[in-house]
Amino acid sequence: MLAACGPREQAAAPAAAPAAPAVITGETVRWRLASTFPRALDTIWGAAEVFAKAVSDATGGKFQVSTHPAGEIVPAMGVFDAAQTGAIEAAHTATYFFFGKDDALALANGGISFGLNGRQMTSWFFEGGGLALSRELLDTFNLVNFACGNTGVQMGGWFRREIRTPADLQGLRFRAGGFAGRVLERIGMVPLAMPAGEIYQALERGTVDGAEFVGPYDDEKLGFHRVAPFYYYPGFWEAGTQLDLLVNKTAFNALSPEYKAIVNQAATLAHTTMLARYDALNPAALKRLVAGGTRLMPFPRAVMDTAFRAAHTLYEELNATNPRWKKLYDHQIAFRRDQVLWHGLAEASFDSYMQLQGRNNRL
Amino acid sequence: MLAACGPREQAAAPAAAPAAPAVITGETVRWRLASTFPRALDTIWGAAEVFAKAVSDATGGKFQVSTHPAGEIVPAMGVFDAAQTGAIEAAHTATYFFFGKDDALALANGGISFGLNGRQMTSWFFEGGGLALSRELLDTFNLVNFACGNTGVQMGGWFRREIRTPADLQGLRFRAGGFAGRVLERIGMVPLAMPAGEIYQALERGTVDGAEFVGPYDDEKLGFHRVAPFYYYPGFWEAGTQLDLLVNKTAFNALSPEYKAIVNQAATLAHTTMLARYDALNPAALKRLVAGGTRLMPFPRAVMDTAFRAAHTLYEELNATNPRWKKLYDHQIAFRRDQVLWHGLAEASFDSYMQLQGRNNRL
Repeated sequence: MLAACGPREQAAAPAAAPAAPAVITGETVRWRLASTFPRALDTIWGAAEVFAKAVSDATGGKFQVSTHPAGEIVPAMGVFDAAQTGAIEAAHTATYFFFGKDDALALANGGISFGLNGRQMTSWFFEGGGLALSRELLDTFNLVNFACGNTGVQMGGWFRREIRTPADLQGLRFRAGGFAGRVLERIGMVPLAMPAGEIYQALERGTVDGAEFVGPYDDEKLGFHRVAPFYYYPGFWEAGTQLDLLVNKTAFNALSPEYKAIVNQAATLAHTTMLARYDALNPAALKRLVAGGTRLMPFPRAVMDTAFRAAHTLYEELNATNPRWKKLYDHQIAFRRDQVLWHGLAEASFDSYMQLQGRNNRL
Repeated sequence: MLAACGPREQAAAPAAAPAAPAVITGETVRWRLASTFPRALDTIWGAAEVFAKAVSDATGGKFQVSTHPAGEIVPAMGVFDAAQTGAIEAAHTATYFFFGKDDALALANGGISFGLNGRQMTSWFFEGGGLALSRELLDTFNLVNFACGNTGVQMGGWFRREIRTPADLQGLRFRAGGFAGRVLERIGMVPLAMPAGEIYQALERGTVDGAEFVGPYDDEKLGFHRVAPFYYYPGFWEAGTQLDLLVNKTAFNALSPEYKAIVNQAATLAHTTMLARYDALNPAALKRLVAGGTRLMPFPRAVMDTAFRAAHTLYEELNATNPRWKKLYDHQIAFRRDQVLWHGLAEASFDSYMQLQGRNNRL
C-alpha cells in the first residue's frame, strides 16, 4: 500500500530519519503523527489531537506533535509502515488493522471477536500484563505502543435486510474493521476492509450490503442510516477495541526520560478521554437515529452462537500454528475468563437493575 | 466527624502556607499529599503513589509530591480541611466523605446511591460537563479537583446474617462509606462512618453488624470474611465512586502552565490505573474468598426497590432545599438516563452473552 503512495513520495517535508538519538531534556522536539481516521470523526481522530495538545501543554510547546488525518501525509492504512520505517514518528491507529502482518497484532489491541470489553481491555493492558506482552510484539516491528483510546462494545452495524438466522448472513458483502473479517468469513459473510472515509459511498453504490464502523455518533456522521435501515447490536467482533499510539522506536529512545513519561501520560489522557467522549455523545445520536426511522435490533442468539464457535475454532487453529499469537492469546483469554466472572456480579446486577428502572420510566 | 479529629490538632508538621504564588517553570516544587486511606490498600492508596511518581517522572524529579497515608500527617477524614486551608497542598480522598459540609459534594464524585457506574462517571466528568460543575463547587472550598481513581460498582458488603427482606435490615449497625448513610438510614439501617483502618476491629467487637469497603481484593485484606459469612452485591450505594485529587487552590495557581498540565495528566494516569488494578486483582481475591467459605448473595429485589425509592425521595428533598445540590443533580441525573439507555444495548447484550458463556464453561 505504501509503495503506491508512501509518505516519502507525498509528504511535503518528510524527515529523513527521526531526531538524533541524543538525550533531550526541555529541548525542542517535533514529531509528525499520522492517523488512520478522517478529521470529521472528532471522537477517534480527536484522540490524536488530545494527545498532541497534552504533550505541548506539559512542555510549554517545546515538544510539538503535528497531527495529520488519513491521507494527508500517509494513507489511512499506511501509518503502521510509516511509523515503523521512521518516515513519521508516530501513528494513531489500531494494531488489528495490520493482522495481515501477524494475526497476533489483533490481540495487542484487544481487537478479536468475543474479546475483552473496554474496561477489561484497559485492565489487561495497564495492570494485567498486556502492556509488556504487546510491547514485546510491537518491538519486532520497531514500534513502541501506548493505549490511546477505546471504543467500548461497538454496534454491530447496518444492514439493508433483517437478519433472522445465520443463513441470512451467507454471501453478504460487509465492511468490517480489522481482524473481524477473519471470523465473519467463517460464518459465510464476505468481509471487505476499507477506511472510514470510503464506506458510505460503497454502501450507496451497493458495493457492500452492510457496514459497521463504531457506534451511533460516528455512524450518523458517516451517513449509514440513509442507506440501510436495520441497526444491529452488539458488535461481537469488537467489544473493547483499543486505539494505539505507535511510536517509532528510534524516535522514542531519543527522548529524555521526562519526555518519555509525558508521552505516556498524554496518551493515557487521550485514552481515557476518547471513550468518555463516545459515551457522552452516543446517546443523543442514538435517539436521533431512532427518531429518524432506524430500527434497532439485537443479533439473534443463533447468530451469536455460530460466530462464537467459529471464532474459537479459528483461535485454536492460530494457537497451533502461530507461537506469537498463542503467547498473547492464552494470557488474554485466561484474563477474560476471570473478568467475565467478576463483572457478572456487582457490575452486571447493578447495570441490569438500572436498565430495568429505565425501561419502566423511573430514571 | 471532622470536629473530633481535625488536621490542625493532629498533623505532625503542617506547612504554614503553600508555596509562594510566583509562576514556576522547571523549578523545584515540593507538595505534600495526604490520603484518606492506609498504605496497606495498595489499590486505592496506590493511586496517590502513581500520581506522585508520574509528576516526578515528567519533571525529572523537580516537582516532588510526598505521599502520606491516613494518620501520618493528617487524620483520614481531616485531609479535605487540610488541603482547603493550605496545611497540605493536596489530598487524595473522595468528596462524598465530606457531605456534612454540603450534600452536593456527594454528586461531585458520583458518590450517590443508584448513581452513574464507573465508566459513566468518567464520561460525565471528562466529557459530559461534570468537570466544570464539580470545579465550581469545589472552588467554594478553595480546592481544585481532579479525577484520580474509580472503584467501579462496589460489592454490597459483609453481613453476619442472611438478608431475605427489607425487614432484615432494620436496626442493623452497618459501616458504610460517605453519603451512603443518608440513604441507608432511611431504610432502617444504622449507618456508621469510620475509616478503612478501623472497620475490622468494629466488626470483630460487634460494634457494627456489617460493613462494606470496596470489593474482594481490599475486603480480603481488611479481613471482613473472618467475621461475617454473607457477601452481598451490588453495592447500590456506590456504583462508580470517583476518587479525587483535591489541590489547594493557591498552591495550584502558583504552578506554571506546564506543571498544571502535568498535574492533570498524572492524575488521569492514576485515575485510569486504579480501576484497571482493581479489575486485575479482584477476580483472584473473589475466588479465594469463595473457596474459603464466603457465601455470595445478590440483594433481594425488594431491598433494591426499597432503597431506590428511599434514595430518590431524599434526592427530591435535597433538590427542594439545596440549590447547589440541585444544579449538579439535575445535570447528572439527565446524563444517567441517557447513559443507562445507551449502555443497555451493545454493552449489556455483549456482557450478558459472555457471562452466559462463562456459566456454561465455554470461556
